[in-house]
Amino acid sequence: MRIGRDVIEASNAKLRADHEADYAALGERLARRGVSIDAVTRQVAGFSVAVPSWGVGTGGTRFARFPGPGEPRGIFEKLDDCAAIHDLGRATPTVSLHFPWDRADPADLRAKAAELGLGFDAMNSNTFQDHPDDPRQPLSYRFGSLSHADAAVRAQAVAHNIETMELGEAIGSKALTVWIGDGSNFPGQSDLGRAFDRYLGAMKEVVAGLPDGWRVFCEHKMYEPAFYSTVMADWGTNYMTAVELGDRAFCLVDLGHHAPNVNIEQIVSRLIHARKLGGFHFNDSKYGDDDLDAGSIDPFRLFLVFNELVEAGGRLDALGPSYMIDQSHNVTDPIESLIRSADEIRRAYAQALLVDREALRGHQDANDALMASETLKAGFRSDVGPILARARLDAGGAIDPVAAYRASGYRARVAAERPAARATGGGIV
Amino acid sequence: MRIGRDVIEASNAKLRADHEADYAALGERLARRGVSIDAVTRQVAGFSVAVPSWGVGTGGTRFARFPGPGEPRGIFEKLDDCAAIHDLGRATPTVSLHFPWDRADPADLRAKAAELGLGFDAMNSNTFQDHPDDPRQPLSYRFGSLSHADAAVRAQAVAHNIETMELGEAIGSKALTVWIGDGSNFPGQSDLGRAFDRYLGAMKEVVAGLPDGWRVFCEHKMYEPAFYSTVMADWGTNYMTAVELGDRAFCLVDLGHHAPNVNIEQIVSRLIHARKLGGFHFNDSKYGDDDLDAGSIDPFRLFLVFNELVEAGGRLDALGPSYMIDQSHNVTDPIESLIRSADEIRRAYAQALLVDREALRGHQDANDALMASETLKAGFRSDVGPILARARLDAGGAIDPVAAYRASGYRARVAAERPAARATGGGIV
Amino acid sequence: MRIGRDVIEASNAKLRADHEADYAALGERLARRGVSIDAVTRQVAGFSVAVPSWGVGTGGTRFARFPGPGEPRGIFEKLDDCAAIHDLGRATPTVSLHFPWDRADPADLRAKAAELGLGFDAMNSNTFQDHPDDPRQPLSYRFGSLSHADAAVRAQAVAHNIETMELGEAIGSKALTVWIGDGSNFPGQSDLGRAFDRYLGAMKEVVAGLPDGWRVFCEHKMYEPAFYSTVMADWGTNYMTAVELGDRAFCLVDLGHHAPNVNIEQIVSRLIHARKLGGFHFNDSKYGDDDLDAGSIDPFRLFLVFNELVEAGGRLDALGPSYMIDQSHNVTDPIESLIRSADEIRRAYAQALLVDREALRGHQDANDALMASETLKAGFRSDVGPILARARLDAGGAIDPVAAYRASGYRARVAAERPAARATGGGIV
Amino acid sequence: MRIGRDVIEASNAKLRADHEADYAALGERLARRGVSIDAVTRQVAGFSVAVPSWGVGTGGTRFARFPGPGEPRGIFEKLDDCAAIHDLGRATPTVSLHFPWDRADPADLRAKAAELGLGFDAMNSNTFQDHPDDPRQPLSYRFGSLSHADAAVRAQAVAHNIETMELGEAIGSKALTVWIGDGSNFPGQSDLGRAFDRYLGAMKEVVAGLPDGWRVFCEHKMYEPAFYSTVMADWGTNYMTAVELGDRAFCLVDLGHHAPNVNIEQIVSRLIHARKLGGFHFNDSKYGDDDLDAGSIDPFRLFLVFNELVEAGGRLDALGPSYMIDQSHNVTDPIESLIRSADEIRRAYAQALLVDREALRGHQDANDALMASETLKAGFRSDVGPILARARLDAGGAIDPVAAYRASGYRARVAAERPAARATGGGIV
Repeated sequence: MRIGRDVIEASNAKLRADHEADYAALGERLARRGVSIDAVTRQVAGFSVAVPSWGVGTGGTRFARFPGPGEPRGIFEKLDDCAAIHDLGRATPTVSLHFPWDRADPADLRAKAAELGLGFDAMNSNTFQDHPDDPRQPLSYRFGSLSHADAAVRAQAVAHNIETMELGEAIGSKALTVWIGDGSNFPGQSDLGRAFDRYLGAMKEVVAGLPDGWRVFCEHKMYEPAFYSTVMADWGTNYMTAVELGDRAFCLVDLGHHAPNVNIEQIVSRLIHARKLGGFHFNDSKYGDDDLDAGSIDPFRLFLVFNELVEAGGRLDALGPSYMIDQSHNVTDPIESLIRSADEIRRAYAQALLVDREALRGHQDANDALMASETLKAGFRSDVGPILARARLDAGGAIDPVAAYRASGYRARVAAERPAARATGGGIV
Repeated sequence: MRIGRDVIEASNAKLRADHEADYAALGERLARRGVSIDAVTRQVAGFSVAVPSWGVGTGGTRFARFPGPGEPRGIFEKLDDCAAIHDLGRATPTVSLHFPWDRADPADLRAKAAELGLGFDAMNSNTFQDHPDDPRQPLSYRFGSLSHADAAVRAQAVAHNIETMELGEAIGSKALTVWIGDGSNFPGQSDLGRAFDRYLGAMKEVVAGLPDGWRVFCEHKMYEPAFYSTVMADWGTNYMTAVELGDRAFCLVDLGHHAPNVNIEQIVSRLIHARKLGGFHFNDSKYGDDDLDAGSIDPFRLFLVFNELVEAGGRLDALGPSYMIDQSHNVTDPIESLIRSADEIRRAYAQALLVDREALRGHQDANDALMASETLKAGFRSDVGPILARARLDAGGAIDPVAAYRASGYRARVAAERPAARATGGGIV
Repeated sequence: MRIGRDVIEASNAKLRADHEADYAALGERLARRGVSIDAVTRQVAGFSVAVPSWGVGTGGTRFARFPGPGEPRGIFEKLDDCAAIHDLGRATPTVSLHFPWDRADPADLRAKAAELGLGFDAMNSNTFQDHPDDPRQPLSYRFGSLSHADAAVRAQAVAHNIETMELGEAIGSKALTVWIGDGSNFPGQSDLGRAFDRYLGAMKEVVAGLPDGWRVFCEHKMYEPAFYSTVMADWGTNYMTAVELGDRAFCLVDLGHHAPNVNIEQIVSRLIHARKLGGFHFNDSKYGDDDLDAGSIDPFRLFLVFNELVEAGGRLDALGPSYMIDQSHNVTDPIESLIRSADEIRRAYAQALLVDREALRGHQDANDALMASETLKAGFRSDVGPILARARLDAGGAIDPVAAYRASGYRARVAAERPAARATGGGIV
Repeated sequence: MRIGRDVIEASNAKLRADHEADYAALGERLARRGVSIDAVTRQVAGFSVAVPSWGVGTGGTRFARFPGPGEPRGIFEKLDDCAAIHDLGRATPTVSLHFPWDRADPADLRAKAAELGLGFDAMNSNTFQDHPDDPRQPLSYRFGSLSHADAAVRAQAVAHNIETMELGEAIGSKALTVWIGDGSNFPGQSDLGRAFDRYLGAMKEVVAGLPDGWRVFCEHKMYEPAFYSTVMADWGTNYMTAVELGDRAFCLVDLGHHAPNVNIEQIVSRLIHARKLGGFHFNDSKYGDDDLDAGSIDPFRLFLVFNELVEAGGRLDALGPSYMIDQSHNVTDPIESLIRSADEIRRAYAQALLVDREALRGHQDANDALMASETLKAGFRSDVGPILARARLDAGGAIDPVAAYRASGYRARVAAERPAARATGGGIV
């Protein structure tokens, strides 16, 4: 299945001359500002982001799921797709697994990943669905999991998280991401305070089970699947939780999990201040948790997040946040969406690197709002495409990875092997 | 299956004395204001709202669906459940069907409905899902239906709407509700103007197929399942459409389909002004199209909508809007949720009827903002529970319909007959 | 100026018979549920809320201010108006002052308040405006105050807060409320992290200046007057601040200072959990910080906040939160708005007291979402008007305080004494 | 006062070599795509936008106004500032006046504008403030203007609009923009339907007074200064109004006047479809009507609006929309903000011109969502700075207009002539 070097090289051959010209022209322009384009390219090349195993399948809404051709049937086919993404884009060397969806023999997972040149990022547990065939889950999560009113359900959810970490440890992961859908649909359905207390109690048991060297990332989300209250609804609750859970607990920021109009980059700044920024789930959104491709709706917002990361410098390095993509691909080939999303994330990083920080700081301290704003935007306005292409090229990837992917015939090949999935709809309006 | 009169009467017997006392006390208080409680009760009793056939099944989110016991397996079992709702609550004499979900022989549908004492409200077409087994739908709606770039898909969607009307005509319906999910997930994916033109063209064919005496209701929705643009996204587009489609086209307002903070009651007022208000899909929501029980999140908003309806008086009667519930029940027994939702809708109506309109108008004309506000709120603050109970009681229903339903053992009986449905999850984060 | 007892008694005389009937009927109904109406009335009577000195003047927007007749010209006339509010409503025995607006000789303030039967609540400092004539403020707050890039401006702002506390101590206040407008209008204008560090540094100096027995309340607000970032933008930042500032720092919740759709009552619950809830600024809003009369837009939301307070019980008592109104009255007589707002706040409290908490807890623990929701709403649906009236009456106030106020001729009398203010507009579109 | 050619040329001299290199490099890159940079530059140079007379003064919020040095004291000094903007940026040849703020002898206005090389754009009436000294406005607009309950107030507001047009006609304007603040702060305060009827009635009188060749633009806004309902709250009401008012009435879109998350570019598309797009008030915002500099918060959104305009092509030309900036400058020198805002608007236009529309249409028709999205973003990612600079340069403007402005010493010179304004605050929290 693997996309061959020949395909990539043939694609690059056609584009190389133009790329060289563009890179040189940009390099010349940056040099005038005293910036070495090669240095920026190296920094960008050093930045990678994990892809989610579930992201290579077609997503869906509560109304319908329209599968594409060649949907992966299990974790090993998902890893094949992840390899295609990384072979072309060279920005996504690790995969984030989701249990129990991706349950498999750890040795097999390690072997497959090694063969594909991939590693494993944070593990994701799943206590927001029932798995009727799983003997480990006799109790339903309909009314919650880690915050459930019934201690037996909480214990089951804790055990699932422990199991997820065991599997993760066996494949070399170093972190657990916990997102729960617990909450309520009606005022009164749940006691807001007691539910949070129960959640904290259960999470303390999860934290007690963290393997050596592991961290836990808690993920907040304003709403959905619960539509009135969500136990872990906002970054304030997440921060409060991380403080109560101790030194190994951190906050994960999903860009689509906030209220309308919220200044997300400032939340990032606050969590860096508190040394509790654990990482990101990157995606983009216009309305709710739309899970669209990173940077597709508001690229400036993505840039502003990276501006905070670059600005934080050493303080961020000390935190070592985990970068992951978390998207749902309903109308595109998931492989293509993940390739370009990783690229958009790197684009924002490259643009943030190009900000003249000394000048910016000077304007800020002088309350020169206009020049501060323009100095920041100068980074964003930079067309850093040549830098991104060079970072891929230097690492053996494609100048135009989507074009190379299409030329490779990968999708047709897997579609020939993997049976077509059935369109489904939820019966919900 | 039918809930027996004896069950209802036994339940009422226990509550009747208190009910009489409450009704008398409220009547006395209203009489002091010159209001006849019996007249209000009669008006309330005259107000009914349709239940959606799909609403008696458990809903779900894109993350999971947790079915309850005794889920109806088809339209005939759904009608049984609808009868239970109406037998107890006496506010929901009609059912709104959804095709192709509810496809059946029209004669059988008519016979079943007649047996249960139910009628049929507006028909709902479905071009937001694929139905792989339906030979009438060979083409996918993944990228749209009535606005699809491919004329063949549009023609298929038009034909489906025509078929929906044919079935509706055969069972005595008088209206078609058209809601489509068409839109795009990314800027650029769709040409916003051309997509709308295609939609209008297709809808003109649908309108041309309207049976005599029928109306068509177009339903707008801000987002979901499309997450960047939606062809029929707002009431402005809906109104523009209704004008272009002519005298038989009207706008349907779903309370959960608007942007945050929008003043929905003013939209209702504008559509009444333009004589284009076709009807409602009642539900409640806090975040997006949450489809929660009517009045459960913001009961004052529901009251303000009814205030516009009562205020419009004769202008509204000339429009004869269609009242429907459209909810998704994830954590409650759908029968219970629909009983109380119908009650909440009548509650808002009753409260609006209690507003002293002459005084209100006087305060408005005098710019006495405080007294105008207080006069309106006096209606809302009225505890009209005794009026609602009396309207049910007089029509043979239950004073406390949820209590009577629980006493009836209906859910256990249907659960014994209907096999348990399986919990499902979309594999989506 | 004082509204005479005779006016109140004359007004009550006309309403007393109906009031007695209503109170008796409600009492009878509550008794059937095992609730003593007199006990509830006593609890309600024990609940009071502070009025803001600035609230008795007409507010305005950036577009215009339309003053009403008889605007108070200074703090002593404002106190006269506050006395009128309390004389009629008997729910607002204290006034919250704002410096430097209300600067005056402390002895005079104490004497005036004693004469009027009023006390003083939390002090409010003001570093969001320049006061060109105040020799203590030579430096401008245009670009911030406690977080300003210039240490001299921060020092000036700290000194102002210290002075505010000194004045407060002299008049018997026990708390300082700090709200700042600091933030930025453009990405880049301000370094989000450094600005917060500077704010924390300055606030530590303020805290160091707290008199014995005092607390400080920090108030967050999403936006306005800053339109891109606000240093103290959300409850997460507020909580983080309160933790860093220590045991005497608490979070103040203004109901209008959150992002759209946010679940405010859950924030209240979280702050109670963390023992950091300092108090409230009550008002209502539909869009932003609209500062409308409490309960006028979403009365159910106000009830849900009080539901958390009642639910917290002893934990809340240990915190002793400070209850204040913070509204801007543009289209009503401020005295009338404050009377009815205090009443609405008490209404929400009374309704929350009527919730059957044992039943609620049972339904919650059984995951009976529908009955839990209905049990809570039963409290909200109660028409507690007779209880509110009785609480006023028993304390010497008016059954219908707005009617008594209008009958008193107070506004005309002060308008005759106080010169008309001039309408102004900002020249801003 | 005028900024001399020598200042501009001196500034350009330092930057010209780099500019030429950048322009050539971009030209070479575009040529490879078959695009002539000079053709694009010419199109950009042909695009201009009006500046608002009120925008050259410092804005404010309801909390405070912090004036900058050299605030213009009247319309003639405002025109001086507008000339400075156009002399440097060459994108803003016209000024939009606001009555009665800018009332002056028409002959003097014409003479001054001619001297400065400026023209006049649409006229703005003002019925959202009281002007106590204006004998033409004896009645207050506190409770509305064109929709006021009192016919005398409506007549006064109509007369003001007529007068505004008379003044406009005398100075060569061709359009009237009507924005009103009419609405209500509390449910019940205003009858939503009757208020709209009164508004339509009054506007019909305004339309009857339109001089030959004039158009009227109605401007909608979701909220502020009214905080519950606004008569002209959304584009649906605006469109309905424009239809009822007839062929000379059009809708004006202010980018900051919509609900959160709304897809503004689709509204633009709908109004083009209906041939009712009258023009724009450009600005940017994150929360409400923040009136920030265009493109400063979400530059991609501005680009998407221009994408619709370019896509519309001939249909747009037939409409001839009016382009205006409407911003409030609180923390910057207004002259600088207006220079860069005009530039940002042109930037979005230039980027939209660079979209490969044939390829885009092909991807759209093939439902290739990813390539359609990427094709559109390729335009946005283009760093068109050199094109903007060249358009200014060719027209006699500055390569770096803010730098040239600062070098000119203009602000210091006007500050020496114009007395310092006083900081003010509204007394509102």
